[in-house]
Amino acid sequence: MVSKNTVKFIKSLHRKKFRKQEQSFFVEGAKNVTELLRANFTVTKLLCTEKFKNQHHELMDSIEGEAILVGQHELSQIGTFQTNDAALAVATIPKAEDFEIGKGDLVLALDDVRDPGNLGTIIRIADWYGIEKLILSPETADFYNPKVLNASMGSFCRVRFMYKALDTVLGEIKIPVFGAFVDGDNLHKHDLGREGVILVGNESRGISADLAPYIHHKISIPQFGAAESLNVAIATAVICDNFMRKKNQKSFDQ
Amino acid sequence: MVSKNTVKFIKSLHRKKFRKQEQSFFVEGAKNVTELLRANFTVTKLLCTEKFKNQHHELMDSIEGEAILVGQHELSQIGTFQTNDAALAVATIPKAEDFEIGKGDLVLALDDVRDPGNLGTIIRIADWYGIEKLILSPETADFYNPKVLNASMGSFCRVRFMYKALDTVLGEIKIPVFGAFVDGDNLHKHDLGREGVILVGNESRGISADLAPYIHHKISIPQFGAAESLNVAIATAVICDNFMRKKNQKSFDQ
Repeated sequence: MVSKNTVKFIKSLHRKKFRKQEQSFFVEGAKNVTELLRANFTVTKLLCTEKFKNQHHELMDSIEGEAILVGQHELSQIGTFQTNDAALAVATIPKAEDFEIGKGDLVLALDDVRDPGNLGTIIRIADWYGIEKLILSPETADFYNPKVLNASMGSFCRVRFMYKALDTVLGEIKIPVFGAFVDGDNLHKHDLGREGVILVGNESRGISADLAPYIHHKISIPQFGAAESLNVAIATAVICDNFMRKKNQKSFDQ
Repeated sequence: MVSKNTVKFIKSLHRKKFRKQEQSFFVEGAKNVTELLRANFTVTKLLCTEKFKNQHHELMDSIEGEAILVGQHELSQIGTFQTNDAALAVATIPKAEDFEIGKGDLVLALDDVRDPGNLGTIIRIADWYGIEKLILSPETADFYNPKVLNASMGSFCRVRFMYKALDTVLGEIKIPVFGAFVDGDNLHKHDLGREGVILVGNESRGISADLAPYIHHKISIPQFGAAESLNVAIATAVICDNFMRKKNQKSFDQ
């Protein structure tokens, strides 16, 4: 049985304001919760069904906070999933990182990607392609938004990120910046390097004009049909795939 | 002013049963509605704001049915968008096609892609890469679902599709079938041909085991990090990109 206070507390975490105030976030569903429990987070509450408990009892020891048995119905009332027969976990937001970007790095930079589903999908793509560092503009969706975490399918545990003004970051780094545009060089023919920042822009207006001075290469995904554009997460995946193909070829060539 | 009957009629089209019964569907938003009006559909109703009418008056002549001026509030109440300051149009579902698949074709086949957002995104990807033909298994989301059409961003006007049992279609065709798996050959190193069927599977279980006899090449997107999988629309985009790169290279090599 979950107390009214716990319900109220978790429901407040749907909103960024309260996540910030409480320095807490929650994740839902078997995949995200098990990834969270296995990773290096401080889990303060676990709400789970009997079924989840039986399937994952080895993970239960890692919880510092309380574990509460609940029914499916309660889980879907507290969280964002329409159905959730597994679990919901609350964890402490880790201290914000401030990492270096240097030689050999392949990094993603997001300029105001507002849709939480897009950010979550991009986190999953980054994790697939082994890209560990993400630079997020301050207006990009909140990393700890439940929709972001859900769409990341557990990959949120394996990427590093920092929210920073992109002009500041791009102005300081020493590796090339590749910006995704509709009128750039053909990605299939461009000599993509082994290192760099892949910069993608906002869903409607693309990359901000004021970042132009920091972009060394304007690249585009070649278009063979008539669609005007691709979704930003789709474009990010295709660009990452092209980079990793080249990076991999080059390491074979050495 | 929209009549109660019209509201009721359009609301019924949110559901597949009534779309089938009425042989009608609707699209929303400036992008999709203008694409619909420019394409070869029979538009039976157009609900639009004063603003949309002023911006697109040249398109209004192509409507066979009635045009009704409405407010934003009405549009969002009738359709699926939270806000819609442009238009909503109802059109007749065209007669189902039955096209041939032959030499030189590059075709997408979807095995039970259930999520409407994924299907819509895949339609947009197909249109970007100039892939005109889609084969959809009967359990794949409905092409005329409003969420599919919305996610397609107008590309629904430019692809051809048929709902057919995939074993029947794949058993009859004479071009190679490439199935997307997690344990297939590395897509970056595989000798992708100039023609073929790209087969992708359901969001949770992948490609049905009973399609195995029809698959000539098992392909996989190489993974460099730790994410378990990629979303089906993301995977489709990356595979299409690899095919078009090869197809393009080969036509240069001739």
